[in-house]
Amino acid sequence: MTTDFTKRLDATADDTEKLLGELLSGDALPDEIARPTRLIEAMRYSSLGGGKRLRPFLAVESAAVFGVPRDQALLVGAALECIHCYSLIHDDLPAMDDSDLRRGRPTLHKAYDDATAILAGDALLTIAFDIITRDAVHADPMVRLLLTRALARASGIGGMAGGQILDLAGEGRFGDRDPVDVARVQQMKTGALLRYGCIAGALLGQASQSEYKALDAYGRALGEAFQIADDLLDVESDAEALGKPTGADAALNKTTFVTQLGIDGAKRRVQDLLAKADASLAPFGAKGDTLRAAARFVADRKN
Amino acid sequence: MTTDFTKRLDATADDTEKLLGELLSGDALPDEIARPTRLIEAMRYSSLGGGKRLRPFLAVESAAVFGVPRDQALLVGAALECIHCYSLIHDDLPAMDDSDLRRGRPTLHKAYDDATAILAGDALLTIAFDIITRDAVHADPMVRLLLTRALARASGIGGMAGGQILDLAGEGRFGDRDPVDVARVQQMKTGALLRYGCIAGALLGQASQSEYKALDAYGRALGEAFQIADDLLDVESDAEALGKPTGADAALNKTTFVTQLGIDGAKRRVQDLLAKADASLAPFGAKGDTLRAAARFVADRKN
Repeated sequence: MTTDFTKRLDATADDTEKLLGELLSGDALPDEIARPTRLIEAMRYSSLGGGKRLRPFLAVESAAVFGVPRDQALLVGAALECIHCYSLIHDDLPAMDDSDLRRGRPTLHKAYDDATAILAGDALLTIAFDIITRDAVHADPMVRLLLTRALARASGIGGMAGGQILDLAGEGRFGDRDPVDVARVQQMKTGALLRYGCIAGALLGQASQSEYKALDAYGRALGEAFQIADDLLDVESDAEALGKPTGADAALNKTTFVTQLGIDGAKRRVQDLLAKADASLAPFGAKGDTLRAAARFVADRKN
Repeated sequence: MTTDFTKRLDATADDTEKLLGELLSGDALPDEIARPTRLIEAMRYSSLGGGKRLRPFLAVESAAVFGVPRDQALLVGAALECIHCYSLIHDDLPAMDDSDLRRGRPTLHKAYDDATAILAGDALLTIAFDIITRDAVHADPMVRLLLTRALARASGIGGMAGGQILDLAGEGRFGDRDPVDVARVQQMKTGALLRYGCIAGALLGQASQSEYKALDAYGRALGEAFQIADDLLDVESDAEALGKPTGADAALNKTTFVTQLGIDGAKRRVQDLLAKADASLAPFGAKGDTLRAAARFVADRKN
């Protein structure tokens, strides 16, 4: 990665951290409201102090293509990150993936308790729709409405939540294993929020239909590359140490891009997707360079 | 209750049922999306087939004061009902109130499983923000934005979710019992969504500031009356049978309006609130009659 790319990524992570710190604060509540201190602390525990902030970065850089002021895109990115963080909290619950660790710290339900984790997830999901409607996001209320609706759709039955239940069904969690269409589950479970980051810039920039479609295609390619890289990491991070594929997916006997395409096939597919992401950005010329680098970053990441 | 009031209440319940049946349907998803059938079924299980639909009724009747077309208010009511239903699903979870029955049927996590219940609640919360932003809600995007943001605030840390955690803290769920300000917890936990139903009409009707304040004051009085009636029912539904107060609240040794004011004091407070609700509606004259009847209905309800 070039120094410039890393600098931009880190700058957005820093700005997002600061902004979320302000947004997730009891100070924003009206005086008459009793401060739900425990809830606010739990929301902050799971949202602050970590993460590459890849989704906010995609929002900021896709908005930059259209010259949208950075502060507007950062707000959209913060709303998107609230959704991402809520999804991790609920996924980690005992009734879901039952994970004890996240980013090297106890998961929220371990650090607090299950009830607090459920409510903190709910409240993060909810505050995303407070943030995304704010005047500072865009002067035109119609733009904010489109951003809001698209965020709901990326997160709901046709997006993340729908993908999550299909993924659990594919693991055999509800009885017999459902047949898994890996590409479709990926598009919904992890792809929808990544794609949202990319189209958010087009919506903020009031892009033409063809520009919107370009960023949509870019976002879909990046999202699939992200998931394949994830599946490869799951296999290879253990493979290097143990000499055989025995990651978490294999333990669950899960259908992934790697079980479908093989390791080499999956790697070829990532290269195809990078070419597709590149080609999608052609209309933007040099303005698309950071997004090009972002796709490579996603594909090459080691964690 | 007058026959007219009951007819109007039933008509809104029927229309809301029909509308939710349409909105919570996989048919609304794009073709490319894999249908998360289990999730959609779970959402329908908990949202269809029951309830007085009081919150949609308040939205419809507060909108009627301003002559807002009924279909617009019904959409807002449906979004609000999705939030209400999600809150019941998550409240019923083993990690929260651990309830097995709701409206005489097994709760969602009993009929399905905890993971499905968590995701169905998440998806209902999310789809509310899809519904409330739709073009059919109001021609003016700014009105839809205000409705959206107010819905997020009524549901989040300063509203329902915040009230829920304060309520659990007051039960001693997180260690020592927190001191409980019953009125403030009520305003947040149950009051915020009831109040939203009332101000939604003012927002839809692009009411003047004084009209908005009138419906806000009405909604607050109705919300408190609703909660006191609830607390009284918890005591008296057992009291009639057993001759002593031994309801669910008493079992939890919970601070309620009844433990704070006594039974007679609580009943006097309800009468004061009905007078306040009536007075708040004065600016609307006879147009406020159904809302007046709604406040009496809420205060007198037997379940």
